[in-house]
Amino acid sequence: MSQRVYIFDTTLRDGEQVPGCQLTTEEKIIVARQLEKLGVDVIEAGFPVSSPGDFRSVVEISKAVQEPTVCALSRAVQADIDAAADALQYARRGRIHTGIGSSDIHIQHKFNTTREKIIERAIDATKYARKRVEDVEFYCEDAGRADLVFLAQLVEAVIGAGATVVNIPDTTGYCLPDEYGAKIKYIFEHVKNIHKATISIHCHNDLGLATANSLAGIQAGARQVEVTINGIGERAGNTSLEEVVMALNVHKELGLETGIHAPLIFPTSQLVSKMMRMPVQANKAIVGRNAFAHSSGIHQDGFLKHTLNYEIMNPQDVGVDKSDIVLTARSGRHALKHRLELLGFTFDKPTLDDLYRRFLDVADVKKEVNDKDLVELARTAIAA
Amino acid sequence: MSQRVYIFDTTLRDGEQVPGCQLTTEEKIIVARQLEKLGVDVIEAGFPVSSPGDFRSVVEISKAVQEPTVCALSRAVQADIDAAADALQYARRGRIHTGIGSSDIHIQHKFNTTREKIIERAIDATKYARKRVEDVEFYCEDAGRADLVFLAQLVEAVIGAGATVVNIPDTTGYCLPDEYGAKIKYIFEHVKNIHKATISIHCHNDLGLATANSLAGIQAGARQVEVTINGIGERAGNTSLEEVVMALNVHKELGLETGIHAPLIFPTSQLVSKMMRMPVQANKAIVGRNAFAHSSGIHQDGFLKHTLNYEIMNPQDVGVDKSDIVLTARSGRHALKHRLELLGFTFDKPTLDDLYRRFLDVADVKKEVNDKDLVELARTAIAA
Repeated sequence: MSQRVYIFDTTLRDGEQVPGCQLTTEEKIIVARQLEKLGVDVIEAGFPVSSPGDFRSVVEISKAVQEPTVCALSRAVQADIDAAADALQYARRGRIHTGIGSSDIHIQHKFNTTREKIIERAIDATKYARKRVEDVEFYCEDAGRADLVFLAQLVEAVIGAGATVVNIPDTTGYCLPDEYGAKIKYIFEHVKNIHKATISIHCHNDLGLATANSLAGIQAGARQVEVTINGIGERAGNTSLEEVVMALNVHKELGLETGIHAPLIFPTSQLVSKMMRMPVQANKAIVGRNAFAHSSGIHQDGFLKHTLNYEIMNPQDVGVDKSDIVLTARSGRHALKHRLELLGFTFDKPTLDDLYRRFLDVADVKKEVNDKDLVELARTAIAA
Repeated sequence: MSQRVYIFDTTLRDGEQVPGCQLTTEEKIIVARQLEKLGVDVIEAGFPVSSPGDFRSVVEISKAVQEPTVCALSRAVQADIDAAADALQYARRGRIHTGIGSSDIHIQHKFNTTREKIIERAIDATKYARKRVEDVEFYCEDAGRADLVFLAQLVEAVIGAGATVVNIPDTTGYCLPDEYGAKIKYIFEHVKNIHKATISIHCHNDLGLATANSLAGIQAGARQVEVTINGIGERAGNTSLEEVVMALNVHKELGLETGIHAPLIFPTSQLVSKMMRMPVQANKAIVGRNAFAHSSGIHQDGFLKHTLNYEIMNPQDVGVDKSDIVLTARSGRHALKHRLELLGFTFDKPTLDDLYRRFLDVADVKKEVNDKDLVELARTAIAA
């Protein structure tokens, strides 16, 4: 089994649909380009049938990035799949993500149908999507609460119908890690054609267990994990990209790796937080303001004696470099350009010259110019 | 084995030592009384030898609460233990929490000693503490990275010396859940006198795994879990009380229970966040602003068809009741009194009358008076 874990980032779909987090297409392109630099394998760019804005965002992100697969969400209905395929027409690598409820709660109370009909609709949707694109991911919604035997039947059916990736989401954030790991293990042991697809995991954090559940799923054989920057998303959010990636990096004994360029984790966290105006709490793992702060006397003493006493990773590993974060009126044009680029903004020379003049005005008043100020400055330059 | 899991809250010790989170003794008493109402079993109230303020806080909290055990931290040295015992003299139930490093990294680089000497010092400190109080908890610092065989020897030695509780902390937030659970299981299988003590777990959230590690430890037999409100604490913080408690409540099949009165979880989260000026991010599990918000069209539709489609607990279970949170100029004196009490503030009638007059002034200007405003109002009434 491959030791490469693919990172499927849904910041721009599951993350962006949260109230107050909406971005313009232009802002989404900046985030998507930053995600490409960060090294994600798949960018879920939107849900094209849901609105003309989402459709246009998928089109423009498809044009803007080269390396990552661009993915578009759809329900298991032809109109959705057609919209997704149309929106993906410019993608170098395009993927349609379609699916349907798999738990009895969803089958009975949301779809008002039977398990048999769900399998029929799943097969039809997968085959229809495969007519439009080569790469089709199928999601078994609420798999976390689904009956295991039925879930395995559904997975086998959609792989048979041509799904290249099958997503086993814990939609409601219900599972415990051993339970979720056992679910993925069961699927690997009971789905005959499992070797023809990649199993993907998509966890929600309602009980604070999304990262642990994702790792349990990976340890059980899943090789794609669906995440967002800062763990944003529905309710308590999705699995945090930064937590899963750094857990795999710190625990080298697992022998698993991702394509993520970790030193861009913190700047990307800052970019997404500031663009979406979603503050990250100080005690957020990896990317919080205090994540690498040692405050107690005992800890400071031990830390000064030997950093390994209280640190399992270096702040620099994830791009936290205190000296680098705050710019002042003494910072040069190059420092400004460098920090803006880390945050995902690249400007031509005239725009940068103008930005630098305005940066100096701000620095004169504020003395210290932080990432939030820089994102606001850059945002006005985009809007202009 | 007992099915009752004891909740050891260290909001006022491990949480409060974070920069910017410091509280006055009077403020700590308000939080301690709220923790008592919430139903925690143990309140870690401070580290008495560290400062006169911490000493006084442990004294005053000991006087202020009746039901919970009050615990005071110390290193494995007599002066610390004496200070802890002196500070606890008014506690109805007092516990000294003493301990020393248990990983080779700590033993060599922090204490510059040997495993044998560590065991001697651990036994001496435990015996000395037992001369002062009946209830002694011993922490094996950095147990998460300690050698298993040595850790079991250390645990057996301190139980032999009279420790009533032994804490196996993952001090650096390093462990994976299966690894941490296996560590606790090993201790249960290899420590002969294990039945004479309660095993406690204390996890940090550096990789986002504190809640999962705590649950793994509980599933392996630990019956005390050390937590903070909102998961505040060193670096990425401690295990969140609200996440562990609600995971046990939602997963009734585990057959485990706590003494927590869950409907006070959200008001307590608000109180601690506002008092310590530590914002909780919108997507924080259980207590974040969006934790129970359903935003996407698909989800809203499914949610309206049947709340169980997307909800594994009711917001009311943890005290989130939107209609209750915002007061206006039309709110009566009783509503103000009720909300203040939920937030942990009880005032005599003259103070409440004065507060109500000032509340109306604020409500006239702000229209909606939220928990943050109420905590500020109450804070001024305490200071007056």
